[in-house]
Amino acid sequence: MEKKIQKLISDIIRKDKRAIARAISMVESETPESIDLLNRLHNYKNNALRVGITGPPGAGKSTFTNQLIKMIRNKGKSVGVIAVDPSSPFSGGAILGDRIRMKDVMLDKDVFIRSMASRGNLGGLARQSVNAAEILEAAGSDIIIFETVGVGQVEMDVMSAVDTVVLMTVPDAGDVIQTMKAGIMEIGDIFVVNKADLSGAKRMFDDIEYMLSLRPKIENWLPPIHLTKALNGDGIADVLEDIFRHFNYLDESGQLLEKRRQRIKDKIKSLVNDRIIRNYWDDETLKFLDDYIENEIKNISPYQIAEELLKE
Amino acid sequence: MEKKIQKLISDIIRKDKRAIARAISMVESETPESIDLLNRLHNYKNNALRVGITGPPGAGKSTFTNQLIKMIRNKGKSVGVIAVDPSSPFSGGAILGDRIRMKDVMLDKDVFIRSMASRGNLGGLARQSVNAAEILEAAGSDIIIFETVGVGQVEMDVMSAVDTVVLMTVPDAGDVIQTMKAGIMEIGDIFVVNKADLSGAKRMFDDIEYMLSLRPKIENWLPPIHLTKALNGDGIADVLEDIFRHFNYLDESGQLLEKRRQRIKDKIKSLVNDRIIRNYWDDETLKFLDDYIENEIKNISPYQIAEELLKE
Repeated sequence: MEKKIQKLISDIIRKDKRAIARAISMVESETPESIDLLNRLHNYKNNALRVGITGPPGAGKSTFTNQLIKMIRNKGKSVGVIAVDPSSPFSGGAILGDRIRMKDVMLDKDVFIRSMASRGNLGGLARQSVNAAEILEAAGSDIIIFETVGVGQVEMDVMSAVDTVVLMTVPDAGDVIQTMKAGIMEIGDIFVVNKADLSGAKRMFDDIEYMLSLRPKIENWLPPIHLTKALNGDGIADVLEDIFRHFNYLDESGQLLEKRRQRIKDKIKSLVNDRIIRNYWDDETLKFLDDYIENEIKNISPYQIAEELLKE
Repeated sequence: MEKKIQKLISDIIRKDKRAIARAISMVESETPESIDLLNRLHNYKNNALRVGITGPPGAGKSTFTNQLIKMIRNKGKSVGVIAVDPSSPFSGGAILGDRIRMKDVMLDKDVFIRSMASRGNLGGLARQSVNAAEILEAAGSDIIIFETVGVGQVEMDVMSAVDTVVLMTVPDAGDVIQTMKAGIMEIGDIFVVNKADLSGAKRMFDDIEYMLSLRPKIENWLPPIHLTKALNGDGIADVLEDIFRHFNYLDESGQLLEKRRQRIKDKIKSLVNDRIIRNYWDDETLKFLDDYIENEIKNISPYQIAEELLKE
């Protein structure tokens, strides 16, 4: 066991793709070994830049991400991508997406792409995705991209775990309204209007500019808005420059350290909370609860039963 | 205090709408008094039927619900509606929706409608909505309808707390694909194709029928599919019949008791878990954590810090 995990770690560090994939699968299944693995990999953290890319379906996020990968590679940096897909196992979209994308970069040691789907259980998906990034970081990724479809809680949770959020949209007013409704406009650090050759791109640009003017000015960062054509790469180099610029801004203003401290704090709290809850619900406590429910369901309120349990 | 809460309870029971609204606001804010209130109201449970109505934006859910309310009232039963809107405070949709809808039923003592919005924090919305239903139940609602937009985790959580899920859609293939992606097809007990006069209604019906044929047959309930026109009420009486039929099916097969036991169990667990976590993180533990993070952020992994904390 011990030898196996040491072998896995050294394989991850020398960027072996099969080892990385296996480690991410462990993290996805949340096996006890995965906690041990993540703990040991902590020594190999390299201060990777975490970027979130989100937006409505059809905004061209995958095409955009693929172009971004090429430009990052041209700068000599390595990149890991986690595409978070909270769709049901029904669709199988995650696996298909992986295959199509992998073709381009299969032979490049410094690119790793992984889709993560809910497999019917949304509960842990955000946490698992963030944990998977730690494996990519240990494997030397300089930049880690999280790609999501910006609608649900899982996506919001993932975005709260990155340094820089790129919010993508396309020239179509309907989408903006939906995007606004999900409360996601508020979290963008960089805005991208993709498919900028379509009519309405200018209006979308103006709409975003107007909405940004309504945001309270609590920071020294004014989110830039970019017009891009992901299909041929137009405008994407400028987005990448702004990603680096935002990272520097966070670093110099002290927010980067603050964000990362907060994230470590949240992580420790959730590890501790999981454990104390698991410890609490032992066989005896569960039996006590089951007996109550079996015998008293009609007469005693759940609030009283909770009190009884806590008295023990 | 004691007297005030007793007054509130007796006002709720005699269906005073202002008292109900105030109690729901308490539940929304999760004040300590709200726990006390919910505990005492448990004595007034009346085995209300809980129905969830969900589907993509624009499916006509509000119009459908309004028609359903009228038909339920024609049967002499009382009804409470909770419209769950996880949109950002940005939109203010919840309050507007309330006003427009309330006009119809303002004077009817046996209808209560309440919208619940996220107010910027999605975390507790599902729980608060389910708790609000307990107030409506104590106020004598025979049927409680939860209306959501079927995309996110909040909506899925709400739907998991009802007896019968009505899944609405409209003749437009794009929506079905989105709906499927959200993993929501699997949770429908009754399917409704609204706006059935639009072209494509038959195809949508066939698509749903086909998808249902792929579901594993683990139950004796074959989900019916209805074609409706919510605007003039066509087909909605049949949906209501099927809602009652599904309730009877659950009751007779023992699933109703099982579902409710499970829900009480989950509720007790979450009450206990909240409390033990709150008790754990006292000033001392929080200071211990802060000191660690302040001093050792670079050297010690969060997994080790969690271990240290748990040893104390």
